[in-house]
Amino acid sequence: MTYCLAVSTSDGLVFCSDSRTNAGPDVLSSYSKMHIFNFDTDHMLVLLSAGNLATTQAVISQIDADLESDASESLRSCKKMNDVATYVSRVSREALSDANESLADSEVNAAASFILGGQVRGGSSALYMIYSAGNFISTSDETPYLQIGESKYGKPILDRLLGEGTGLEDAARCALVSMDSTIRANATVGPPVEVLVYENGTFESDHYIKLAEDDSYLRALRAAWGEAIQTAFLELPEFEWETGSRSDPALPSGFTEEEPGA
Amino acid sequence: MTYCLAVSTSDGLVFCSDSRTNAGPDVLSSYSKMHIFNFDTDHMLVLLSAGNLATTQAVISQIDADLESDASESLRSCKKMNDVATYVSRVSREALSDANESLADSEVNAAASFILGGQVRGGSSALYMIYSAGNFISTSDETPYLQIGESKYGKPILDRLLGEGTGLEDAARCALVSMDSTIRANATVGPPVEVLVYENGTFESDHYIKLAEDDSYLRALRAAWGEAIQTAFLELPEFEWETGSRSDPALPSGFTEEEPGA
Repeated sequence: MTYCLAVSTSDGLVFCSDSRTNAGPDVLSSYSKMHIFNFDTDHMLVLLSAGNLATTQAVISQIDADLESDASESLRSCKKMNDVATYVSRVSREALSDANESLADSEVNAAASFILGGQVRGGSSALYMIYSAGNFISTSDETPYLQIGESKYGKPILDRLLGEGTGLEDAARCALVSMDSTIRANATVGPPVEVLVYENGTFESDHYIKLAEDDSYLRALRAAWGEAIQTAFLELPEFEWETGSRSDPALPSGFTEEEPGA
Repeated sequence: MTYCLAVSTSDGLVFCSDSRTNAGPDVLSSYSKMHIFNFDTDHMLVLLSAGNLATTQAVISQIDADLESDASESLRSCKKMNDVATYVSRVSREALSDANESLADSEVNAAASFILGGQVRGGSSALYMIYSAGNFISTSDETPYLQIGESKYGKPILDRLLGEGTGLEDAARCALVSMDSTIRANATVGPPVEVLVYENGTFESDHYIKLAEDDSYLRALRAAWGEAIQTAFLELPEFEWETGSRSDPALPSGFTEEEPGA
């Protein structure tokens, strides 16, 4: 399985991916699912991949080949983010079609899906999710994030924390907590975890980190989050039958403070 | 869909269930999935149900009928929690077998699963998950909770918060946060939310609450949790490229305090 996610904020984009691939519980290996295309100063593009590894590798190879041969249509020829999504979608559909042809007699599922994000000079940054069928969607103000792969475990924290005013690095920390929750819950999602934080208009991929299982930042983040939510948990309102010290067990302390005389 | 969970602590058991049932997105209705059997002073039993509503209703009806007719085998005749699990498993398998017979020509999935918990006088309290096939498992020290239905969204918070020393009411609050996360993420899980907190040895079901969507306790819990994790989030360690006020951005404040001179 796989878990990849990306977040759009007003300042830029966050990408986060795990690295575990599996073909059965005893065939685990590690592959990067974050593909960075920063080949000139006008394009900064990132592709996160999920699904059949052969298909995703075929897609990345074709994108690289089109760039190297300076094909009439390639990432370099795309003038808008929507053009990039359309191009990657076409490459993906062709790779899936080829795979399905050669796998006709097997039961292997060759489907792959992608999160595409980045910026082309002259336009705004954007995020897209490209389904295996080739159609794609982008983020919205109400839904500033996209997920592929094992998305359920890590969704609640995104829904609770990401908002209109979330900063770029805060969004990256939120993505990491979401990833950590998923890694803990599902053995087929695992480190190294890659994080790329892209600031709009820079066309650079400087803020990239790759965190191994025992990485000190990842351990510190886990410890800090675990400790903080244990503390947060103690702030929750008591049930009516509990005899606590609070004056109104049905309301959290924050509520009573706002009411003068309470 | 459905989300039900139960937690075993050293002081007792917690049960929590949603009430939404659906047969397609436009056929939503509300049914309690928490069935309390507290018919004498020697048995305090709770059954949480998921899956096909007709099958779960058939199971509950048969359990009630066996109790009313004083059948040779009924909840009343069970002297141990394991006997209760074996009995409910048999009733469930028979109901599924009947349903599959009458549904032979349809594509309806009649499967149902259950969480069973409680205490029979003379023994300890216990929790079981009864699969639709009729086999069942209990909790362990390492896995003190069981879930049925839409279990992924609400799992990370259980893994992070439930431990050996978690108190009974804290476990109930944790179950409610897990339920709230699931309700937010999945439209087929919804209130009213039922919570029953059972203290070992009481053989009573006094600490039961049913929380509607606009219930003041549920709203207070949501507000307190949302506020507390926003605060918790600000405590997370910064990335190395951020220029924050902390002396060591790779470590949370809790870490540095423990190291004299840091």
